Amino acid sequence: MSADRAHFAALDAADPLAPLRDAFSLREGLIYLDGNSLGPPCRPAREALRATVEEEWGGELIGAWNTRDWIGLPRRVGDRIGRLLGAAPGQTLVCDSTSVNLFKTLAAALALRPGRGTILSTADNFPTDLYLAQGLSAWLGDARCRLRVVEPAAVVDAVDDDAAVVLLSHVDFRTGALLDLPALTAAVQARGALALWDLAHSAGVVPLALDEAGVDLAVGCGYKYLNGGPGAPAFLYVAERHQAAARQPLIGWMGHARPFAFEPAWAPAPGVDAFQTGTPVVLAQRALEGALSLLDGVDLAVLRAKAVALTEAFVAEVEASPLLADFRLVSPRDPAARGAQLSFAHPEAYALVQALIEQDVVGDFREPDLLRFGFAPLYLRHVDVHDAVRRLERVVAEGLHRSERHRVRRRVT
Amino acid sequence: MSADRAHFAALDAADPLAPLRDAFSLREGLIYLDGNSLGPPCRPAREALRATVEEEWGGELIGAWNTRDWIGLPRRVGDRIGRLLGAAPGQTLVCDSTSVNLFKTLAAALALRPGRGTILSTADNFPTDLYLAQGLSAWLGDARCRLRVVEPAAVVDAVDDDAAVVLLSHVDFRTGALLDLPALTAAVQARGALALWDLAHSAGVVPLALDEAGVDLAVGCGYKYLNGGPGAPAFLYVAERHQAAARQPLIGWMGHARPFAFEPAWAPAPGVDAFQTGTPVVLAQRALEGALSLLDGVDLAVLRAKAVALTEAFVAEVEASPLLADFRLVSPRDPAARGAQLSFAHPEAYALVQALIEQDVVGDFREPDLLRFGFAPLYLRHVDVHDAVRRLERVVAEGLHRSERHRVRRRVT
Repeated sequence: MSADRAHFAALDAADPLAPLRDAFSLREGLIYLDGNSLGPPCRPAREALRATVEEEWGGELIGAWNTRDWIGLPRRVGDRIGRLLGAAPGQTLVCDSTSVNLFKTLAAALALRPGRGTILSTADNFPTDLYLAQGLSAWLGDARCRLRVVEPAAVVDAVDDDAAVVLLSHVDFRTGALLDLPALTAAVQARGALALWDLAHSAGVVPLALDEAGVDLAVGCGYKYLNGGPGAPAFLYVAERHQAAARQPLIGWMGHARPFAFEPAWAPAPGVDAFQTGTPVVLAQRALEGALSLLDGVDLAVLRAKAVALTEAFVAEVEASPLLADFRLVSPRDPAARGAQLSFAHPEAYALVQALIEQDVVGDFREPDLLRFGFAPLYLRHVDVHDAVRRLERVVAEGLHRSERHRVRRRVT
Repeated sequence: MSADRAHFAALDAADPLAPLRDAFSLREGLIYLDGNSLGPPCRPAREALRATVEEEWGGELIGAWNTRDWIGLPRRVGDRIGRLLGAAPGQTLVCDSTSVNLFKTLAAALALRPGRGTILSTADNFPTDLYLAQGLSAWLGDARCRLRVVEPAAVVDAVDDDAAVVLLSHVDFRTGALLDLPALTAAVQARGALALWDLAHSAGVVPLALDEAGVDLAVGCGYKYLNGGPGAPAFLYVAERHQAAARQPLIGWMGHARPFAFEPAWAPAPGVDAFQTGTPVVLAQRALEGALSLLDGVDLAVLRAKAVALTEAFVAEVEASPLLADFRLVSPRDPAARGAQLSFAHPEAYALVQALIEQDVVGDFREPDLLRFGFAPLYLRHVDVHDAVRRLERVVAEGLHRSERHRVRRRVT
């Protein structure tokens, strides 16, 4: 049975995270259920950008590399993300894109497991994860590196003596299904392979304990739940025990032991810094750093509990609505088995997403027939869940998605 | 003989580029001779950033990928740089760092010259250029890829039947020496190798005609003379004739023919887009795009003539000063043979640079004994040349560089 709006308002009144919403500038009336794709701007990100342009770049010019420690950004912002990952300092680096970081970490995994040449992943993994593995394999040749994809349930059994690394996404981008990271890490390692996790859809919203789980390598994204801005720099994690032996081919001056000695031969910087390549994108690093400050002092268990509450309420509201009977939940029904995202299959999914956007409820469409909604607990309210479902009911009841203008697919993202 | 200040002021009064200085916020009294390392912020870069954060990211959130064509940024900003390179549209892409783009273009060159495995470069090339070649070579193995470095004068003779690509920096980062790009490109190609140019120190300040010269591949930097901001995204150029056959290993979703179809197998986007990898860093791309708008309508020949005039005047002023007799010009004395940069050797170079910074003249130090000055014609005035040399004379005359505080080297950049 659908709960009334007062019930949701009461939950918001009791929500310890509720004040954080004020830091985000979300237009009145807008219900933004796409923070799993792009987080909105927040005050500290804006302020960090302003200070970087006006005071640092504008005020100190080239000197800011030292005086404002721009040179230290990849490690400094990395360690700030590290806290969210359950990673002790010195293992997380903010640099490049998730794709480029996948290349580095996949290559490192192969170097750490000489004699093994298979990258094992799942057929439904995020495409760029598979593409980078394909690129590495095509480049090194089948004799040195092969990508093998299996169904998610079969992945542990598929770890054979040739598997160097198992590349898994913690949260499935289509269904929101959450894998058991500690158990899979242990199972993969027991068979002699390394575990490389893509945390794009869990960093900053699902509590993580990479060190405790003994994860080998990880990558993730700065622009989803971390709110770093469109195309924010990504991160990578290399467990300390692997850092001395790990090698990757994108060796650039920023990963050199003495970048400003301009020596002709590369020499690795100590620790995770050897995974740096080119000059850090300072403006974007600083925006991300600002956004991350919002998570300082936030208990990730509280964040997770709110995300679970929001998704549970959304499912309950949809299930209680006769108008929405043909929305089929494809995310796991058990909240412990999913991230902060819900996906519903519907034959008119594309048009429904478009019509919902016109009602100021922003989710997104994923091929072939999915409506996808993200529930970012930093800024969403419980009443947003109530209101979003009411607007969805209105779209369906009034057939707003059947308007001529929703026939042609135009969205790219 | 030193010219008096009125002479320089008269040159500024007649300078058609003089009004452009107003777009840059350079503190009164500061003479910034380090634009070859990091360009200063300008009004259109600031305005682009503001609009991106407030109106695009803040106003349209995820929708801005379509409505504001964020997805088109790498090509759009790339083509804007392409004009400065003498490159027809569709060959230049803004993405990643110069280092990562070097990896992509070096790999592409190997793929375009099957049967050849040598990357030929110069011993004095910018270190990250050599490092990326070392990384590629170490990764592929000596049998498939070898880096060979020779003295600059010997490079053409060194192009043998195994040379796949010759990697050259158009302007030497230490000395400012400018290579003859058309002649070297032709000579290298006549011996069957490809020409890959690093344009970090020439894009936006030295007129370029890549298409006309038949250059194969190029990379360059967004944060020097293009003023895109610290760590601005870099660019790469792939000549149209090579695009169908060129392949590189960093294949990511943004280089896919249909990135949002989320297909499990990679398929190359048409043209240069196949060189994209991960999500573009929108904030930084937009800042660069804003800064590039300052160069719209600027005649590169006029820009070059001013850079030559500035460097010629600086050399003349130094040569005319008995106080500065032990500053040895290591840049070519012929302005046609150098970029927009001058380097002087001096045994006390490090301390002199530090003392000059205290006099509000910002240049930089390069190992082992170089004072390096960049003359960015977009915002420097002729009087700045006069004043900078007077301040240098004062440092020397008063022995300001011999202060205790300049003994210890602290600068990183």
